[in-house]
Amino acid sequence: MRISRDHPRFVSLRIRELLVKGLQDGIVVPEGLLAHGRGEAFDYLIGERTGKAARRAIEAAGAALLTANSPVLSVNGNTAALVPGDVSKLASLISARVEVNLFHRSLDRERRIARLLSRYGLEKVLGVGANASEEIQGISSRRKMVDPTGIGAADVIVVPLEDGDRAEALVKSGRKVIAVDLNPLSRTSQAASITIVDNVVRAFPGLVRTVTRLKHMRRSSLEKITSGFDNKKNISMGLAEMMAYLRRWRMKA
Amino acid sequence: MRISRDHPRFVSLRIRELLVKGLQDGIVVPEGLLAHGRGEAFDYLIGERTGKAARRAIEAAGAALLTANSPVLSVNGNTAALVPGDVSKLASLISARVEVNLFHRSLDRERRIARLLSRYGLEKVLGVGANASEEIQGISSRRKMVDPTGIGAADVIVVPLEDGDRAEALVKSGRKVIAVDLNPLSRTSQAASITIVDNVVRAFPGLVRTVTRLKHMRRSSLEKITSGFDNKKNISMGLAEMMAYLRRWRMKA
Repeated sequence: MRISRDHPRFVSLRIRELLVKGLQDGIVVPEGLLAHGRGEAFDYLIGERTGKAARRAIEAAGAALLTANSPVLSVNGNTAALVPGDVSKLASLISARVEVNLFHRSLDRERRIARLLSRYGLEKVLGVGANASEEIQGISSRRKMVDPTGIGAADVIVVPLEDGDRAEALVKSGRKVIAVDLNPLSRTSQAASITIVDNVVRAFPGLVRTVTRLKHMRRSSLEKITSGFDNKKNISMGLAEMMAYLRRWRMKA
Repeated sequence: MRISRDHPRFVSLRIRELLVKGLQDGIVVPEGLLAHGRGEAFDYLIGERTGKAARRAIEAAGAALLTANSPVLSVNGNTAALVPGDVSKLASLISARVEVNLFHRSLDRERRIARLLSRYGLEKVLGVGANASEEIQGISSRRKMVDPTGIGAADVIVVPLEDGDRAEALVKSGRKVIAVDLNPLSRTSQAASITIVDNVVRAFPGLVRTVTRLKHMRRSSLEKITSGFDNKKNISMGLAEMMAYLRRWRMKA
């Protein structure tokens, strides 16, 4: 499952296979394939690797998760299909809860995702069916319904592959939102407290490694990492990396 | 069906709907959704509109099609789902043959695409089943099999949403290849004789308009347009437009 260490071309083919399989298994919806394709194109533009800005965002995210009172990982179909093992590992490292939260909601799909994650060692998956009984203000889609013991009670939330609507509403509600999004200028990326502009198949293993490294650090040192992180500035630096890559590309053309 | 004149946001949602419907109808494959998503991201980077470089490429393509002896439009699942009416209209304007040619080949899907196009007025669709009996050298996928009366006999071919493999092989075989591809640095874009870096939902109506306008021009004037067109230079100018757009984007961020 740790597919992120292979050659980029192989990785992107392997990811596509996983998503098409996810579609067949009722984990992924067609819209998820479209969304992933968009991400893939942005991934080309950063050279299909984790750049400096993304590494800094991952470090800030790791520190924020380790100092959180009630961290939650929000999982959708694509995330479950691509990095179920890393979601489980990260959750156990930081004692986070995991909640399934889908844009195209169906009880069947929620259950399938929960079952898939449990095969990767997760004991409990929140947000399935009627358990998502609390409403977050300002979200028009059915993503507004959350589990009161999960996202409802969270102070820090990881939202990979999110829609902008919900990211904005979660930030507005006072929560710290860590987004994983390959489009640095999406509404999600712009709204989030910490934006990791990276492919989930690299960002999640990166979070696992970072949290493992930071885990024994003093709380004050961790807080220094998060308070020293400027998200707007970091996104702008990421965009500069992207443009430098595009310039080199253009020279080769 | 002429969805290209609406607001970009609405257009991209409408396109997604058409492709998801195409998937349900057996016209589009999951890989087509992934490919479209990639295109969509590149479309953001050109502002979801047809820029100067694309307009020049469309004009050169129109002139090349009008001076061709045996023009062929190659159609895959996504193209059939998105612009069936424009494919039919363009074919009738330039007396081109239309051939279905799929990466993920199945007789069922070929027939469905042919039926769909016939509903839009196309009398004959080549390349279905055993009719694709001629092999193009240098293509490893099943796209290598073509209709001897279609792509087999063509001197100019429009290949929207192509894979690089086949674009390269078709150019090597001495044919003029007109690609429609939103990624200016894909192998297809690099290999093609004329690369239209644009969304098919804008490029096809654009080709229809351009051909209508150029149709009564003298042959010598049309030949002047094609011979004056430098594809490498035009792609590079398109990339410069993309980077200028990205810079403005970054300023807003």
